[in-house]
Amino acid sequence: MSKLKFSISMSTDGYVAGPNQSTENPLGEGGEELHEWAFVTRTFREMQGREGGETGLDDEHAKYWSQGTGATIMGRNMFGPIRGSWGDESWNGWWGDDPPYHTPVFVLTHHAREPLEMQGGTTFHFVTGGIEEALERAREAAGDRDVSIGGGAQAIQQYLRAGLVDEMVVHVVPRLLGRGERLFENLDGGPTGYECVEFVSSPRVAHFRFARKV
Amino acid sequence: MSKLKFSISMSTDGYVAGPNQSTENPLGEGGEELHEWAFVTRTFREMQGREGGETGLDDEHAKYWSQGTGATIMGRNMFGPIRGSWGDESWNGWWGDDPPYHTPVFVLTHHAREPLEMQGGTTFHFVTGGIEEALERAREAAGDRDVSIGGGAQAIQQYLRAGLVDEMVVHVVPRLLGRGERLFENLDGGPTGYECVEFVSSPRVAHFRFARKV
Repeated sequence: MSKLKFSISMSTDGYVAGPNQSTENPLGEGGEELHEWAFVTRTFREMQGREGGETGLDDEHAKYWSQGTGATIMGRNMFGPIRGSWGDESWNGWWGDDPPYHTPVFVLTHHAREPLEMQGGTTFHFVTGGIEEALERAREAAGDRDVSIGGGAQAIQQYLRAGLVDEMVVHVVPRLLGRGERLFENLDGGPTGYECVEFVSSPRVAHFRFARKV
Repeated sequence: MSKLKFSISMSTDGYVAGPNQSTENPLGEGGEELHEWAFVTRTFREMQGREGGETGLDDEHAKYWSQGTGATIMGRNMFGPIRGSWGDESWNGWWGDDPPYHTPVFVLTHHAREPLEMQGGTTFHFVTGGIEEALERAREAAGDRDVSIGGGAQAIQQYLRAGLVDEMVVHVVPRLLGRGERLFENLDGGPTGYECVEFVSSPRVAHFRFARKV
């Protein structure tokens, strides 16, 4: 059964991106540190077309967002820093010519744009009809496989508020950011109805997986 | 060197107490679940004058708030549900005749009251001069030992905002509460300047200890 899921790194004080996000610093100040545990894994290096990297518990959990994933949804900020219309459409995403998704990616936006086919199986589709339309198209593209919300916090919050998320993994990192973008905010009293189905940690990070209570 | 410290259990989504706190449910809905990992430890049972309990990693971390502690500070809500003046002063705290503190406890309040001596070495002092006065009196009472902020979130936030906290342990529990009282909020951009000096977890809880960077 196809699931809607996400997997995100979070500071101990609840932030998934640092303050002052910019083109030079898309994850905000201190935001990159939240992903250090993932950068050293084999899975992450493979996504980048590189060799080596650590295996083990963190590597298993780094796989979560891509394993079994047939389509990805992301908020516009995660595609790029441009606000308003797309201009000359020269912006092709933060991710280089061969983005790490290798699936169709549905970008939530208010501004229509033609699909953008990249190398390695990633095609960006720009969805102006809101989160339900994006989910419908992503499910169709994914078939039996899962749909993963790539981020950021606002896109995830929209799906949590709508009660559409089946499973989530939060990777809690031993750092305090103090400021930035929170994951569990603007949820109108949610998420409710989830239970922790897996909780393990390495010396670098604690992985919490929550699923809907059945 | 005497430290100002605290130790608190927090849900994965950042709450240290549930919503709808009441006399029957002082930790709010779901709040008690955050402490289940501690309830089963030998340290906690000893505090209650009971035998048995588990030893090991969680027990070691349950000791943190009492070990080496010479005085405790708490917010008024943690002493009791009464708002405004103390009335007939019959309320002696949530904690029974023999409270688990076994130290002088300084209660932050706007309403003066005579000290209240309980069994087992706990005496409640009511401090109307604010957090600095409470800290000064607590340090004097603690001597070489540490001062522990018992809670709740608001009292802790006041000391964090003032930059007075030397060390903190956050016990992150694999649960989502969805609502309630957050720990890392109302901090005006803090806490900053802390680093994680210890991070370990058991199957029940992840313990993160942060100290000021030196």
